[in-house]
Amino acid sequence: MQGTFEEGAVRVGGDARQRFYDARGYGRPLSGNRIELAPVEAAHLLFRGDLDGVVGPDGDVLDVRGFLAATDAVLEFVVYKDLRDRGFYLSPAREDWVDDPAAADFVVYPRGKGPADDEIAYRVRVAGERESIPAAALGSVVLAVVDEEGELTYFETGRPGPAGEMGSGAVDEERYDPPTDLDAALLADRAVVWDPPTALHDRGFYGQRLHGRNAESGPLQLSLVEAAYLARRDALSLDEPRVVERGREVEGERFDRRLRAYAALRAAGSVPKSGFKFGADFRTYDTFTAVDEMDHSTRLIRVVSPDHTFLPRDLSLDVRLAGGVRKRMVFALTDVNEGIDWLSVARLTP
Amino acid sequence: MQGTFEEGAVRVGGDARQRFYDARGYGRPLSGNRIELAPVEAAHLLFRGDLDGVVGPDGDVLDVRGFLAATDAVLEFVVYKDLRDRGFYLSPAREDWVDDPAAADFVVYPRGKGPADDEIAYRVRVAGERESIPAAALGSVVLAVVDEEGELTYFETGRPGPAGEMGSGAVDEERYDPPTDLDAALLADRAVVWDPPTALHDRGFYGQRLHGRNAESGPLQLSLVEAAYLARRDALSLDEPRVVERGREVEGERFDRRLRAYAALRAAGSVPKSGFKFGADFRTYDTFTAVDEMDHSTRLIRVVSPDHTFLPRDLSLDVRLAGGVRKRMVFALTDVNEGIDWLSVARLTP
Repeated sequence: MQGTFEEGAVRVGGDARQRFYDARGYGRPLSGNRIELAPVEAAHLLFRGDLDGVVGPDGDVLDVRGFLAATDAVLEFVVYKDLRDRGFYLSPAREDWVDDPAAADFVVYPRGKGPADDEIAYRVRVAGERESIPAAALGSVVLAVVDEEGELTYFETGRPGPAGEMGSGAVDEERYDPPTDLDAALLADRAVVWDPPTALHDRGFYGQRLHGRNAESGPLQLSLVEAAYLARRDALSLDEPRVVERGREVEGERFDRRLRAYAALRAAGSVPKSGFKFGADFRTYDTFTAVDEMDHSTRLIRVVSPDHTFLPRDLSLDVRLAGGVRKRMVFALTDVNEGIDWLSVARLTP
Repeated sequence: MQGTFEEGAVRVGGDARQRFYDARGYGRPLSGNRIELAPVEAAHLLFRGDLDGVVGPDGDVLDVRGFLAATDAVLEFVVYKDLRDRGFYLSPAREDWVDDPAAADFVVYPRGKGPADDEIAYRVRVAGERESIPAAALGSVVLAVVDEEGELTYFETGRPGPAGEMGSGAVDEERYDPPTDLDAALLADRAVVWDPPTALHDRGFYGQRLHGRNAESGPLQLSLVEAAYLARRDALSLDEPRVVERGREVEGERFDRRLRAYAALRAAGSVPKSGFKFGADFRTYDTFTAVDEMDHSTRLIRVVSPDHTFLPRDLSLDVRLAGGVRKRMVFALTDVNEGIDWLSVARLTP
């Protein structure tokens, strides 16, 4: 059986509808028993030997090799074949083929379902490892990255939020309320509270002892983000604008974005601390009540601008690290004076 | 007991030499029993209560708080105190205080040794988490990064190499020699060998099956780096310059640097494969003989330019991930037409 390649699709006659569409979810029906296949579907049928060849625009009969070269569909083929091998039927997300085709390359049906059913398991976007992916394109799709050697990695993306889902919703009366007007000074890229009440660290989990991790008292170092947040609440003898100014001096407008994310996390009942050891902006404790009853942190937060584009390799690094330490990777997309969109990304095995 | 702060150092008289230098490794001796302390040492003695105060340039007596504010030595203080707490004596790496002071902030002596002995355990460079660190400054120092909250991370840096240390030195006769002139084509950002001998993948570990991980035969996808390396050895029907040109089209001059690192690793008897899942350029198998006898990969390689500057947070991300998967993080510093310097970085607990 042969197909004909024209106008970006392969048409097949004979009993193609029964054999390919009805029985195995390939293509979409045309009039009679004819169907139309996307190039990647035709490539898969050629690879399986279910099609003997495809007649190209100039009358040549192409085999899978010639067809892949002519259509440049090798990335899509790798993903399509992998999902088929995993037991899924899937449709290319082409205009008029599926509802809402934008942003995705494939619509994947739940196992046992197909294009004639009305259920979707995943919308999949295919990317090579060197492609830039705008943050705005993520959140409802699965990103399937084909690395330079052809190995596949799937990333599930989601949009947790608003802030509610980002914290424990620890009841307000349990939250620590810092005192006012604590004696503090800016020292280089940090602030120091010279004589803090013990609870500022132990119940509020602000700062770190200047005298080291094991010290139980003494001055507290605060990050400038912590200091700005506390200053805003009148907890320090420093004014917020002065702290913010210092913050901008040491890291530019990123400081404002990070402060915005920090404040939103605190407002949601989560406790953000430095994510440096994990290469992130923050790690968060979502059910924090006191330092001596502390659980592991559960999320890593990286703050980026809303027009950020991800390189798949950077995404792979962040998500792999987060997975290895059993945390969830969450990006805070925020501009200096705007709201925050949260974007979670995790490895997926379909 | 008080000291006097002038010309960037604190001088202390009385029995300071016996009490501080001889007994506990602070400062360096001046004439008589006087010693000179670097600000960070004076801050530590103030903190411990061993000095009661330091007389500043304008006659005020400073306590630890005032002294830290006046000298801006808070980062160094955090590191100095931590190393002291861990049982080390250390000297500020100041001109005329220690041999070869450049590139380091502290010279740390082995436990039980001090400045009067002639042994060094570590040279330590102190950095805030937002400082850029030139690659050229790393390789013989320990980098102590103080994060924004004051938490410390130590990175040991080394210069493995030349190539010998980067591979198993697998004896030449055991190495796989690819055949010549295999039928191959460029497809988008990869190459495909249509009908490869089984050994190309199974013994040479080149490429990945187009038909998926579990396929045992069929076409092989090669990364462009693999394809360029094989083309250089006349193994493919493609010319090296054509593959290199495609490589530059898809990733610019980074392609040439990555190819250089790839070829050097192969030459050293190591087998580099895509590091995408770890966010790196390559993972390497250093004792590879065949796919079915394969051990875990042992190194992650990131290729950067020799004038690269590291942000400590990026370094933290790479090194943490590598440590989590029991691999060693190695940077290949190379320009397009130069040699390669290898730089290894690992977490250290002093």
